[in-house]
Amino acid sequence: MFQRILIANRGEIALRIMRACRELGIETVAVYSEADRGAHYLTLADESYCIGKAPASDSYLLINRIISAAEIGNVQAIHPGYGFLAENAHFAEVCRECSIEFIGPHHSAMEQLGDKVSARKIAADAKVNVVPGSDGLVTDEKTALEVAGKIGYPVLIKATAGGGGKGMRVAMNEISLKSGFSAARQEAEKAFNNPGVYLEKYIERPRHVEVQVLADQHGNCVHLWERDCSTQRKHQKLIEESPAPDLPKSVREDICKSAVRLIKTCGYYNAGTVEFIVDKEHQFYFIEVNARIQVEHPVSEMVTGIDLIKEQIRVAAGEELKLKQRNIKSQGCAIEVRINAEDPENDYRGCPGKITKLRVPGGFGVRFDSHVHEGYVISPYYDSMIGKLIVHRETRDEAIAAALSALDEFVIEGVKTTIPLARRVLAHSAFKDGKIDTTFLERTF
Amino acid sequence: MFQRILIANRGEIALRIMRACRELGIETVAVYSEADRGAHYLTLADESYCIGKAPASDSYLLINRIISAAEIGNVQAIHPGYGFLAENAHFAEVCRECSIEFIGPHHSAMEQLGDKVSARKIAADAKVNVVPGSDGLVTDEKTALEVAGKIGYPVLIKATAGGGGKGMRVAMNEISLKSGFSAARQEAEKAFNNPGVYLEKYIERPRHVEVQVLADQHGNCVHLWERDCSTQRKHQKLIEESPAPDLPKSVREDICKSAVRLIKTCGYYNAGTVEFIVDKEHQFYFIEVNARIQVEHPVSEMVTGIDLIKEQIRVAAGEELKLKQRNIKSQGCAIEVRINAEDPENDYRGCPGKITKLRVPGGFGVRFDSHVHEGYVISPYYDSMIGKLIVHRETRDEAIAAALSALDEFVIEGVKTTIPLARRVLAHSAFKDGKIDTTFLERTF
Repeated sequence: MFQRILIANRGEIALRIMRACRELGIETVAVYSEADRGAHYLTLADESYCIGKAPASDSYLLINRIISAAEIGNVQAIHPGYGFLAENAHFAEVCRECSIEFIGPHHSAMEQLGDKVSARKIAADAKVNVVPGSDGLVTDEKTALEVAGKIGYPVLIKATAGGGGKGMRVAMNEISLKSGFSAARQEAEKAFNNPGVYLEKYIERPRHVEVQVLADQHGNCVHLWERDCSTQRKHQKLIEESPAPDLPKSVREDICKSAVRLIKTCGYYNAGTVEFIVDKEHQFYFIEVNARIQVEHPVSEMVTGIDLIKEQIRVAAGEELKLKQRNIKSQGCAIEVRINAEDPENDYRGCPGKITKLRVPGGFGVRFDSHVHEGYVISPYYDSMIGKLIVHRETRDEAIAAALSALDEFVIEGVKTTIPLARRVLAHSAFKDGKIDTTFLERTF
Repeated sequence: MFQRILIANRGEIALRIMRACRELGIETVAVYSEADRGAHYLTLADESYCIGKAPASDSYLLINRIISAAEIGNVQAIHPGYGFLAENAHFAEVCRECSIEFIGPHHSAMEQLGDKVSARKIAADAKVNVVPGSDGLVTDEKTALEVAGKIGYPVLIKATAGGGGKGMRVAMNEISLKSGFSAARQEAEKAFNNPGVYLEKYIERPRHVEVQVLADQHGNCVHLWERDCSTQRKHQKLIEESPAPDLPKSVREDICKSAVRLIKTCGYYNAGTVEFIVDKEHQFYFIEVNARIQVEHPVSEMVTGIDLIKEQIRVAAGEELKLKQRNIKSQGCAIEVRINAEDPENDYRGCPGKITKLRVPGGFGVRFDSHVHEGYVISPYYDSMIGKLIVHRETRDEAIAAALSALDEFVIEGVKTTIPLARRVLAHSAFKDGKIDTTFLERTF
């Protein structure tokens, strides 16, 4: 086992990793930017080094400075947390070339999964569905009709040069595909100077369901069940939960098994998340793998009782997984609410500043993962997350009541937060009924 | 179900009860003394009434004021918490005479169990062992030898007028009983002006093991497994845990079943704790029933996932227990550390004062039940508890590591605390080996 680990991150996830290390008897080396100098969580590290200024491009993203700190600090491994360099395959490779273990997957698996085409190929090899579509570009109407006939309507006509919701057209049937195909090519030509389009099945009001997996370097892989992260705003998750509501048991099992098959197919190890979209008929389609620990990992920890960060460290040290799939039970319901310093009257833009008063909830099955305290100054240089509230109850109804009650307990003065929004979402009848999809939050509020 | 509950308590347990009520959608009425005026936890109640001055005898112990507040507040029930009036059968009776449900057992059960002789009779009826001894006083040596021969050596010769460790003599065998018996009577005569003595089996280095039970008003009773509370100082529990370490599975099951039998025998309902002492051979003997929720209840909540306060309220409202014994699993190990404001350099006397800085631990399986915050003033009028740290891990070794790590995270400035003592206990090899008994802490530190 490692004696010393460097944590190449900041804030709540740096604190989370320190806590796991301390319990395992592993010393920690923290790095920080000048903006984070003096932060309380740094006092829990055995050593800490300043690696530059804010923003992150001058510190937390500088591979050479982090490697230097790791060498001065004499660590055997680096935990990247999430964000920053966590999914940078080059960083993982550099770490290993310097004989420092990167606590994450092998860089070759990261590269394969990072590329859309090769990721789709891995999924196909693992017999995991991807969103059906054309093999590459479609240049004529006849082929478009053939492809659409095969994948079934509605279909999306997507500009290959588009993205982020732009350059898309929905065709509900043959007639609208006929009328839309040329128009889409012309629009793409105008907008992106590239007429190339391809077809993809249109999933109406999809749900975002992801599976937490854990794999070792000896070919063993288990899942820790799924999380539903459909409650999003501008592609940012606000509320995550496990199990996914209103999903039949057989579908839950299928989706989790599919994730494990996919992970085993590409020789991936350490923790990871296999993301899917799920349609109204509970058909699920692979999107991508998040090759890191995720913000919402505590949700899975609460329902399974497994400490994911400790498992990451053990796997990285070469240990075999002690967990057996049949013993990993999903018990009760866990809900995480991200609490961000954002201004609801200003399009939820980040609202940095000093927390002048802070009272937090606690008690039975209530967890608040956060590095802040009364007097803490939220920096404008980093994401605006104040912390994550996670509740665990026997049923989803109880978990919602507990989350609402815990949110009511918060007193946060000095900055505006997403708490009022989260309250409205949790109290909404559609949310309570589990009728959520990725468009729910923006449609409703 | 009740619409409104009055909480006849203060501090962390008042907050704990408020949280449970809020989740159940029940409004709360708080009462407070002038010393507690303005405490933050009172803001979580729907209404609150001042019921007098400190000390408790001028407020929290005044039955008439609490009943008045309950009537003004228009509540249907009163939760007494622990301490103060929690085990006052007269208070329970007065509540019910005023048509306000007392959230606790029936007062007749409280009375029966409160009396030593009738409690022993209940145990005998339930076929639960009590510490073997003479039936009442022993006046001559011959009878003493007969009784001792029956219960087995070593025996204690106890003065009936003694108590609190005074007026006791150990007889290891017949010879020392012969030489000690008359001497003990003479000593008792001198010390208490009463020569009456009785015999009891002497349990060397006993362990304190208690069983959490929950019973409804329809004859159903379940246990939530046992807690070991042997780590005591001056008869005050410092560290509690579940399961009891180093206790064979069959003994755990026996002791828990015995507790349920005893509870059923006396028609007790609501939450309660059946206390036992356990000798080195794992023989267990009933001592008493604590007819209330206990400080250390979170330990059982962590290993079973059951919210005891919610269950108390449901049972008091007349609901049938939904819990089935076979579904109540004891999972992993939970340890509670009481954190008191006490001065180790002054014989651990209470150390009231203002908390000038406070940082608390958190994260995976870490719970801190407390009503304090930075700037909170610990009153000299009440117990010195700052809060309770509870950790839950898969194994006892991991739980100890987690507790130590969490204790290290605390920053409490302004008052002295028991944290350094708790650290030394948790780090001690005898504690780690589970070799604890009620004399361990004072023998060792």
